Amino acid sequence: MDVDRDVVSLGSFEFDCGETIPDLEVAYEAYGEFDGDNAVLVCHALTGSQHVAGPHDGPGTAGQARAWWDDIVGPGKAIDTTEYYVICANVPGSCYGTTGPSSTNPETGEPYGTDFPAVTVADWTEAQRRLLDELGIPHLHAVVGGSVGGMNVLEWAKQHPDHVRRIVPIGAAARLDPQCLALDGIARRAITTDPNWNGGDYYGEDRPDPKYGLGLARQLGHVMYLSKASMERKFDRRSAGRDASRWFPADRAASFFPYRDVESYLDYQAENFVERFDANSYLYLTRAMDNYDLSAGFEGDSDALAAFEGEALLMSFTADWHFTPAQAETLADSMRAADVDVAHHVVDSDHGHDAFLVEPENVGPPLAAFLEDGTAGAAVTDTAEDVETESQYAPVHTSLFSN
Amino acid sequence: MDVDRDVVSLGSFEFDCGETIPDLEVAYEAYGEFDGDNAVLVCHALTGSQHVAGPHDGPGTAGQARAWWDDIVGPGKAIDTTEYYVICANVPGSCYGTTGPSSTNPETGEPYGTDFPAVTVADWTEAQRRLLDELGIPHLHAVVGGSVGGMNVLEWAKQHPDHVRRIVPIGAAARLDPQCLALDGIARRAITTDPNWNGGDYYGEDRPDPKYGLGLARQLGHVMYLSKASMERKFDRRSAGRDASRWFPADRAASFFPYRDVESYLDYQAENFVERFDANSYLYLTRAMDNYDLSAGFEGDSDALAAFEGEALLMSFTADWHFTPAQAETLADSMRAADVDVAHHVVDSDHGHDAFLVEPENVGPPLAAFLEDGTAGAAVTDTAEDVETESQYAPVHTSLFSN
Repeated sequence: MDVDRDVVSLGSFEFDCGETIPDLEVAYEAYGEFDGDNAVLVCHALTGSQHVAGPHDGPGTAGQARAWWDDIVGPGKAIDTTEYYVICANVPGSCYGTTGPSSTNPETGEPYGTDFPAVTVADWTEAQRRLLDELGIPHLHAVVGGSVGGMNVLEWAKQHPDHVRRIVPIGAAARLDPQCLALDGIARRAITTDPNWNGGDYYGEDRPDPKYGLGLARQLGHVMYLSKASMERKFDRRSAGRDASRWFPADRAASFFPYRDVESYLDYQAENFVERFDANSYLYLTRAMDNYDLSAGFEGDSDALAAFEGEALLMSFTADWHFTPAQAETLADSMRAADVDVAHHVVDSDHGHDAFLVEPENVGPPLAAFLEDGTAGAAVTDTAEDVETESQYAPVHTSLFSN
Repeated sequence: MDVDRDVVSLGSFEFDCGETIPDLEVAYEAYGEFDGDNAVLVCHALTGSQHVAGPHDGPGTAGQARAWWDDIVGPGKAIDTTEYYVICANVPGSCYGTTGPSSTNPETGEPYGTDFPAVTVADWTEAQRRLLDELGIPHLHAVVGGSVGGMNVLEWAKQHPDHVRRIVPIGAAARLDPQCLALDGIARRAITTDPNWNGGDYYGEDRPDPKYGLGLARQLGHVMYLSKASMERKFDRRSAGRDASRWFPADRAASFFPYRDVESYLDYQAENFVERFDANSYLYLTRAMDNYDLSAGFEGDSDALAAFEGEALLMSFTADWHFTPAQAETLADSMRAADVDVAHHVVDSDHGHDAFLVEPENVGPPLAAFLEDGTAGAAVTDTAEDVETESQYAPVHTSLFSN
């Protein structure tokens, strides 16, 4: 598979918040060959990178920085790179080569830190559009993305309805609910109360990173990505069978109580994440996610998508409580009301939000069928086709297992 | 209503972990008049106190320290103090007058800090038993408690089956699931990574408390006490309509994005909590909760309760994801298997775990009826009586709205 990796300088860029930086650089990867009509833009998730598929090498390629959708994107895979030209760009505010808080401010020669402008999902979309202009790609066959990447997909249909044929928001919603806003807010406070965060000014040799704060934020994220059921299956209450990690300081009573598998998992995730991700970027990108509201500037979600005449495939996962099937169904209803040709394909999975990354066998077939044949694709199901299913997936006021 | 408030010195106390302190003091309150057969022990929740009901005065009486069940306990109320003699004791390891990490170690003249022995729910139960011996109360008409207080109730039936007539674990379970273990573990790490925690040694004038760490831990707790539905109803995505609190440091982008109601609520909770609770106590008490396993030392939950010949009322709340109705139903099944006369009364509520505190109109009637007439009480319902209901409340492998 051909992989193009490059960083494009887009020049002066004005953000949604009104502030401008003199040069926005955007790092991207592209796979396959462009034939004028086969471009598929992939939007990465919160801590993801442009490195969607291909060789697993290079520094800083752990976690979602490491070919995070290699099971989905490639020759003969669901997003078939022998058929489509696939592009993914690191979003502004992130830390994988696109300009963000850890980048050098050319006006000062120092890292931006928290002088970097506030970033929104609309800014990501605009940066992607300008990148595509640079690359000579006038319209997209499809935009595909999971989690906040799915919000990025929705923003494409809202901002550039005439330039996108098909959209696939996966494990996404028109906006986060207050439970998720709360957890993201706590995660940001974990970072900003770490004294090493130092108001966002911690870059440079011999200066400590706010690793504990960022580690805690990542651990909270992981709880949101899993489900009760998947955690029970994966960890139950098992002891890790060894002493507690020394990475986090612990209370003395830790030596009396078991160090559990679930703690060991989360500590491992924290340790690894802080090696690959920037704490300020985590603040900026969660702000963008939390702030996203499809209806912003419109009377509602339907109104925001009224100009989109393409097709949409929404995918959701039964045990996902970060972006719930109920939210996806609400979004599907908004699309139906806007006469968008939409299918809401619900995957029965206990993996929680992570399912979009770890269940390629369930995500791949409807995705491939939709890219090829739209909502008529053979592997695509729709909640609207099944009355019983529809009511099952509708939002409920109270539910035994709702949270 | 007569209220007795006292602190009893129980002398040398050996903890479950094998360590001993020279004197365990236990602070308690008692309401009503003891007639030899009418004692009801109330077990408080994680951050609760012995101040269950009565006058709302005195220092440090905010939150659950402030007459936390005044709607349930009192003359003519569900736990009627004209009928029952009601006792509640602050648990060892807490900070409302019973000996804990912030108490002075008589051997050093300094606060124990993390030299205080590890504490378990069995230690709480043993301290309560010794207090009751001191007070001349040989057996209990009932033990009632919510949340981890419900685990304390279960431990009574396990340790002293012949001395308890009726037990009422409310919003409780035989053990926490790994999702809750994970969140509690993250909360503890927020405290122990706060540099002001200083290995647990932060007591004394002019020494800063680990307020940020404890505040974050409390915020995580609050998310666990609410449900998605109650958060949507209470906060939705509304802006608080004012600038962010200055209590937590914030990133600069905070001025571009709204400060939301849900953040304002959590910040307020954090600020207030750190005034009334000790960070080391939070570590100790969450350790006790996380470690609790009804089956410990037995072959299973049924076996642990086999010697209990009294009656049990389990109450659970439909939207509670901290202690789920499914966990309560599993516990009810274990009791049925042990031939315990049990009713599992499910309250339809979207309040989440907090329902046991904030819905006295739903908690009170079955509780009062059970204290009076056992499982035959008129307001008591049982999942086993309703086949449809039973399957609805049974644990499920995957569920659309499970988390």
